[in-house]
Amino acid sequence: MKAELISVGTELLLGNIVNTNAQYLSRRCAELGFSVYYQMTVGDNENRLCDIIRTALTRSEIIILTGGLGPTQDDLTKEAVAKVLERNLLPDEHSRQRILSYFMKRFGLKEGEPIPSDVMTKISQNNWKQALIIENSIVIDNDNGTAPGTIIKIDGKSIVLLPGPPNEMIPMFDEKIMPYLKGLQSNVLFSRMIKICGIGESMAETMILDLIENQSNPTIAPYAKDSEVHLRVTASAQTIEEAEALTLPIVCELKRRFQDNIYTTEEKDHLEDVVVQLLKEKNFTLATAESCTGGLLTGKLVNVSGVSSILKEGYITYSNEAKSKNLFVKSETLKKYGAVSEVTAAEMAQGAAKAAKAEAAIAITGIAGPEGGTNEKPVGLVYIACYLKGTITVKECRFQGNRQKVRDQSVIYGLDLLRRCLIQQN
Amino acid sequence: MKAELISVGTELLLGNIVNTNAQYLSRRCAELGFSVYYQMTVGDNENRLCDIIRTALTRSEIIILTGGLGPTQDDLTKEAVAKVLERNLLPDEHSRQRILSYFMKRFGLKEGEPIPSDVMTKISQNNWKQALIIENSIVIDNDNGTAPGTIIKIDGKSIVLLPGPPNEMIPMFDEKIMPYLKGLQSNVLFSRMIKICGIGESMAETMILDLIENQSNPTIAPYAKDSEVHLRVTASAQTIEEAEALTLPIVCELKRRFQDNIYTTEEKDHLEDVVVQLLKEKNFTLATAESCTGGLLTGKLVNVSGVSSILKEGYITYSNEAKSKNLFVKSETLKKYGAVSEVTAAEMAQGAAKAAKAEAAIAITGIAGPEGGTNEKPVGLVYIACYLKGTITVKECRFQGNRQKVRDQSVIYGLDLLRRCLIQQN
Repeated sequence: MKAELISVGTELLLGNIVNTNAQYLSRRCAELGFSVYYQMTVGDNENRLCDIIRTALTRSEIIILTGGLGPTQDDLTKEAVAKVLERNLLPDEHSRQRILSYFMKRFGLKEGEPIPSDVMTKISQNNWKQALIIENSIVIDNDNGTAPGTIIKIDGKSIVLLPGPPNEMIPMFDEKIMPYLKGLQSNVLFSRMIKICGIGESMAETMILDLIENQSNPTIAPYAKDSEVHLRVTASAQTIEEAEALTLPIVCELKRRFQDNIYTTEEKDHLEDVVVQLLKEKNFTLATAESCTGGLLTGKLVNVSGVSSILKEGYITYSNEAKSKNLFVKSETLKKYGAVSEVTAAEMAQGAAKAAKAEAAIAITGIAGPEGGTNEKPVGLVYIACYLKGTITVKECRFQGNRQKVRDQSVIYGLDLLRRCLIQQN
Repeated sequence: MKAELISVGTELLLGNIVNTNAQYLSRRCAELGFSVYYQMTVGDNENRLCDIIRTALTRSEIIILTGGLGPTQDDLTKEAVAKVLERNLLPDEHSRQRILSYFMKRFGLKEGEPIPSDVMTKISQNNWKQALIIENSIVIDNDNGTAPGTIIKIDGKSIVLLPGPPNEMIPMFDEKIMPYLKGLQSNVLFSRMIKICGIGESMAETMILDLIENQSNPTIAPYAKDSEVHLRVTASAQTIEEAEALTLPIVCELKRRFQDNIYTTEEKDHLEDVVVQLLKEKNFTLATAESCTGGLLTGKLVNVSGVSSILKEGYITYSNEAKSKNLFVKSETLKKYGAVSEVTAAEMAQGAAKAAKAEAAIAITGIAGPEGGTNEKPVGLVYIACYLKGTITVKECRFQGNRQKVRDQSVIYGLDLLRRCLIQQN
């Protein structure tokens, strides 16, 4: 089936934001077995938007629109689709109630409580526009915002409307639209994700070139994500069991080739989930000590709900003073080797474990740039230390890229070092 | 003038890569004063590509294509444009020589040296395809690769062909295409960014509905970004000075309406830059104490290069134990009010300032979910406390959305509270 993506928003045409939604949805469509032939981006302009929708209806079976469902006058996607299909926009009581409870929560009011008139005033008149829906459509609740999504079936085609902000769009698509789209396919797809950390994209691809070149069913789609490589193995068959069976030999072969570099084969799991799980299994608590990453590694760990049972304390020690005071890094060490050194990283990890009385600790110190680099210690030089019940492992990394990229890579490599130490420890 | 961007490449339609070229060129076009009404993405398919080019020629004056100029059989952009314009592809000796010297450099050979036959073999036959140019076109040298660019003038319109890889496309565009495009424009544009924090998108828009409805030159474009609202004011005039002067009354009016909710009018500044700058101006050092955000706020501050002069220490105190030990939060407080309470937040901020001997501190404690919520203290309830030289300000927030969204909003509101306290403090 042919799918077409229409991204709506003047901010895209002005180049204020990069269109990550198109990439996300394209990838999802590929997983579903749909062929995306066109990605269109158009501004918040009714005539041009209507034209684009009309064209899409002549050539694609599935049309997914993102953006333009917001509360403002600029937001016209629903209006344009209704106009093209010659359908009315009708008030939807269910959506109105959801918008109301969204705001009640926000203003600290409980369900059933009388709504003070000032709250009603604060819910700008604009927001009620979001409770208008296209007639004969399926309303999709938005659990992360006020704009509901929509599915419209017309002449064997499907039009899907999604909110633009990725943190609203992605959960809505994954939880509510994917099952619908899967139902349009006669064959079912089963896919397995192999998530790899610690080797580069081109190296990973070289290692499986033969598999990629000979693929048909299942297919292997590699993509790089921050400092990780994800390989999606997808098979198509009459039943989910058959499709799963088709993926098995390839998954086994990938496991054989990548070994410990694979941190999970579960789509839903991120690196931080795996690390927290390993710590829980071993009944270890963790302390963190961060310099150049300034809290980002711990922040990522706290993504995991329930991390409290293993995370004891985190120290952000950007200054030498803080490294000495909170983590017992010796002043001689700082003088002799400098704050960015193997020895300092090791002492930071050991000190964090001691201060927090934790079995495990991870420490990061490095030069994120743009300033602070020297010939001997260039920007991108980062030391990561892992303390595990008396044993310290230090890794020296030399990252490329700007400040942000150096810090992001440090976080991933930090989590990965902890993971590797945990699986090696017995 | 109307510009249209056409990105060519199946890797975009499969979602293997995100289309950063479209963003880059859109931004450049906006700076040049061109209106980009459409961004189209199409795969390496001649018929579909020809259709898209024909449509673009009916509605846009400047058409910029990226991608599909590579050496492989898949690369069809030049062929498609030649077909639509009914022009021939002709061998270009200058481009052939450049391709040759590109490879000679790569194989370490000097200009004028005889070319070994194995080098000639290594320059794949495909590469010579890149020396074919569309008749009656301007060839643009590529200093970073083998695919030359092209400018074609036809019936008052311009078609520009650029290579796809950003490290070839960007320098070629900036150095060689920008001067050409500037020559097409009679007017220049000036734009100013107003960045607002602490009020929602629809509320912000309601406050300026009258300005937006009556806009012509300058225009006001609002967009929401995380928990912020950005307003771009853009004017067009004969000179940059005139254009800037046109934006002034609107910028003043926006400042009058939004007051302290505006944290910057500088495009390049983020909220964390402004906070670090305010701390530096007041010569204050900062300590942070984070529970549910787990280091993300401090991590954002460390985005700012040179933050070391103001950031003393950060404490990630996810457990009650850590709150008491490192931040001196009283156990009675935790027992009586709970870890997520106004009093705990206040004690955390005060304790962090004391522990780090800092003039300022920011503390965050909340329920990010999905577990841990109760009727009285629902998921999304977050207390943010700011300590500033003895004065403590606590803000109660009730955020919507999933764990990630609650935490992201907490970070922005935390930075914003610190900013507001700093500007109010004298």
